[in-house]
Amino acid sequence: MSDAHHDEPLMRRADLALLTDLYELTMADSYTRRAMDEPATFDLFARRLPPQRGFLISCGLEEALDYLEGLSFDDEALSYLRDTGLFSDAFLERLAGLRFTGDVMAIPEGELAFPDEPLVRVTAPLVEAQIVETFLLNCIGFQTLIASKAARVALACRDRSFVDFSPRRDHGADAALKAARAAYIGGASATSNVLAGKTYGLPLSGTMAHSYVMVFDSEIEAFRAFAEDFPDNAVLLIDTFDVEEGARRAAKVGLELQASGGKLRGVRIDSGDLVTLTRRVRDILDGEGLQDVSVVVSGDMDEYRISELLDAGAPIDAFGVGTQLGTSGDVPSLGCVYKLVADHRGPKIKLSSGKATLPGRKQVYRFDAGGVCERDVIALEDEEGLGGRPVLEPVMRSGRRLRPAAPLEAIRERAQESLRTLPDALRRLEVADAYRVELSPTLRELVEQMHHRAY
Amino acid sequence: MSDAHHDEPLMRRADLALLTDLYELTMADSYTRRAMDEPATFDLFARRLPPQRGFLISCGLEEALDYLEGLSFDDEALSYLRDTGLFSDAFLERLAGLRFTGDVMAIPEGELAFPDEPLVRVTAPLVEAQIVETFLLNCIGFQTLIASKAARVALACRDRSFVDFSPRRDHGADAALKAARAAYIGGASATSNVLAGKTYGLPLSGTMAHSYVMVFDSEIEAFRAFAEDFPDNAVLLIDTFDVEEGARRAAKVGLELQASGGKLRGVRIDSGDLVTLTRRVRDILDGEGLQDVSVVVSGDMDEYRISELLDAGAPIDAFGVGTQLGTSGDVPSLGCVYKLVADHRGPKIKLSSGKATLPGRKQVYRFDAGGVCERDVIALEDEEGLGGRPVLEPVMRSGRRLRPAAPLEAIRERAQESLRTLPDALRRLEVADAYRVELSPTLRELVEQMHHRAY
Repeated sequence: MSDAHHDEPLMRRADLALLTDLYELTMADSYTRRAMDEPATFDLFARRLPPQRGFLISCGLEEALDYLEGLSFDDEALSYLRDTGLFSDAFLERLAGLRFTGDVMAIPEGELAFPDEPLVRVTAPLVEAQIVETFLLNCIGFQTLIASKAARVALACRDRSFVDFSPRRDHGADAALKAARAAYIGGASATSNVLAGKTYGLPLSGTMAHSYVMVFDSEIEAFRAFAEDFPDNAVLLIDTFDVEEGARRAAKVGLELQASGGKLRGVRIDSGDLVTLTRRVRDILDGEGLQDVSVVVSGDMDEYRISELLDAGAPIDAFGVGTQLGTSGDVPSLGCVYKLVADHRGPKIKLSSGKATLPGRKQVYRFDAGGVCERDVIALEDEEGLGGRPVLEPVMRSGRRLRPAAPLEAIRERAQESLRTLPDALRRLEVADAYRVELSPTLRELVEQMHHRAY
Repeated sequence: MSDAHHDEPLMRRADLALLTDLYELTMADSYTRRAMDEPATFDLFARRLPPQRGFLISCGLEEALDYLEGLSFDDEALSYLRDTGLFSDAFLERLAGLRFTGDVMAIPEGELAFPDEPLVRVTAPLVEAQIVETFLLNCIGFQTLIASKAARVALACRDRSFVDFSPRRDHGADAALKAARAAYIGGASATSNVLAGKTYGLPLSGTMAHSYVMVFDSEIEAFRAFAEDFPDNAVLLIDTFDVEEGARRAAKVGLELQASGGKLRGVRIDSGDLVTLTRRVRDILDGEGLQDVSVVVSGDMDEYRISELLDAGAPIDAFGVGTQLGTSGDVPSLGCVYKLVADHRGPKIKLSSGKATLPGRKQVYRFDAGGVCERDVIALEDEEGLGGRPVLEPVMRSGRRLRPAAPLEAIRERAQESLRTLPDALRRLEVADAYRVELSPTLRELVEQMHHRAY
């Protein structure tokens, strides 16, 4: 393997310009030929939440802004587009010089969001606003999905911690990185994903696999070896043969480690009846005076399973959550949309059956009482005197970020703070009542007017 | 934005070495310190299929082999690992010189696979074999998931075609690329993903969005503009206001286009009662002599919905399938595992409750009768005279590919050919009977022996 090959990027920033549905480009070509390039506003939002979700945690904005700031079509991209034979010279020329020059309002990462609320609102010349649709939906939709799932897991964990174990199940390499970041924002305490640790500075966490135990002549030899090599960081996997036997061996190694100045961090159980097994394991460890050795469980964990285990009184200190966290297994997509809501002539509305949109450039106001959110009001952005806290913030003007990326810790803190303001009904895993999202009287009137006008 | 920023890779090939769970590296460190680096064999397989799946289409191998050929830890990676304070100098030195030197057997991309059958079998020095686990699971698991989902969609479509419309819902940028490729292998005729078109040479397909219709003064003006700009490639979206009105306008534009030497390709409906609407739209088009204008539908399509529509006799020519295809919505992960099955001392077995493994280096033999697969037999690789066709092929020796990557068209053809050999019971969407996967008598005996020995 040559070094050139090794340094070869897997995906270049310039490639992202082509990470778009073909129709964004054909439509934009048509707009270009017709000089239809006046500013237009698009809202990116979820029409409704899946039945298993009561709230969203906004996530993905930083990557979206990176993309918008870096958007450009290089020679390689232009030459591919030319070769498709689909596009006009005028459009290819427009693309060659294209930079994103628009304004963006958004619900900041880590903030709560609800149906119909613009997570991102883009105002830009029509061609620019159109061609960024696919990437923005991909990026905001996926990361918001995972941060929201992680928040549910965090609520289920109560005061226990959980770690992102998802890299092997995530949908590709990029998903593994983004899922680790979103999971951390949503409440994970660490990730097993080393690249995510390096990329985002996330805390790393890991244990051992069954294969480790199996390559030694006996389980206790494997435990001793790992404890010797990682005297302060060993979490021993005790279910390769028999969990209780494993726990006794781990306890023995824990005591040996103590004697030599180390400290066994924990044991992990990945299979079996976890309520019964964790109790027995806790007893075995406590019986040896190892009260501070953690019991970690993994294996098909999600917020429902975690809640069940804790309800049953299983003495668990931490959870490894993989598949269900990284793929948001019960709800693997949010169905966000990106809809034209205004152009240079005024508000726009779409009336397709079940898929209507809210017209106009909008703001969302959140009303809290005693530190708990009560309701949101979606209003036109120039409405005044509604009260409440505006949730959308200006984040980009004329294609430039208005401030540097927020530190990840601050975003995570905002998310954890937001979760504390959730009404009780929304903190439950089974979603009963939807959060109240109302339209301001002026917006409601505009919607009605436009419906009448259309028919 | 500087050009340097623009050329900056989003993820470098060298980064992939760190796309691993922390425990792969801590275990490998421990092996290195103890000079436990004899060859070991790991199988990557699905223990069982989800209830909604009767077969898998193997996918992701090409990327896996790229990864293995390119695996190395550069200074940046090593320096990050050193800074974690977790690793020994000996291990960091081992990593600095590490290349993958192992042998790989695999079920080729596009081939059918069933539970317990090794999709990939890695034999390599223990350290190498261990640290590649996470990436291989991520890559093979995800792409096999999507190719298998696409194959189900292809079966549901009967002789109609479907297009991958998933980029906006896929889990990140890498997922969008890989999903488009896997969907094509599974049977999609094209993708809307422009970058996937460029990267893999996939056919592109696209229509128009509601926003296009909305920025014109009227629907028919929008249709006329698009038809004028794309006289041979226009698929008009007719449900922004009223589908039947839209169809009549599209027909009018279709006739105008004919008169000027173009040809309307199709109309798309994205909402509403599609059985009724497609019939009315077909009638409207046919009434104007536009029998060859296709009716395309989209919106929450998956194999079940497609089958329902075709069963109801909806006159649909092509389907746009997005979310459910790109996320494998009903089953967003396969739960593949990567398990130690042999080391230099012989076969290995894992006995954890519900998670047992098949020991030894194995081959799979497939038995066909009259062009239909009847059953597979998993056997030890040195067994002879079992009959059937060996399904695993040698693909890498001493870290080098044994042949160049297969052309994508050939992989797709293999997949479509494989699907034709599926028994009827497995071609149905509702999986009733599982495919027969048996163990050879010798393998069964080995399993029993090892179970006895362990207790």
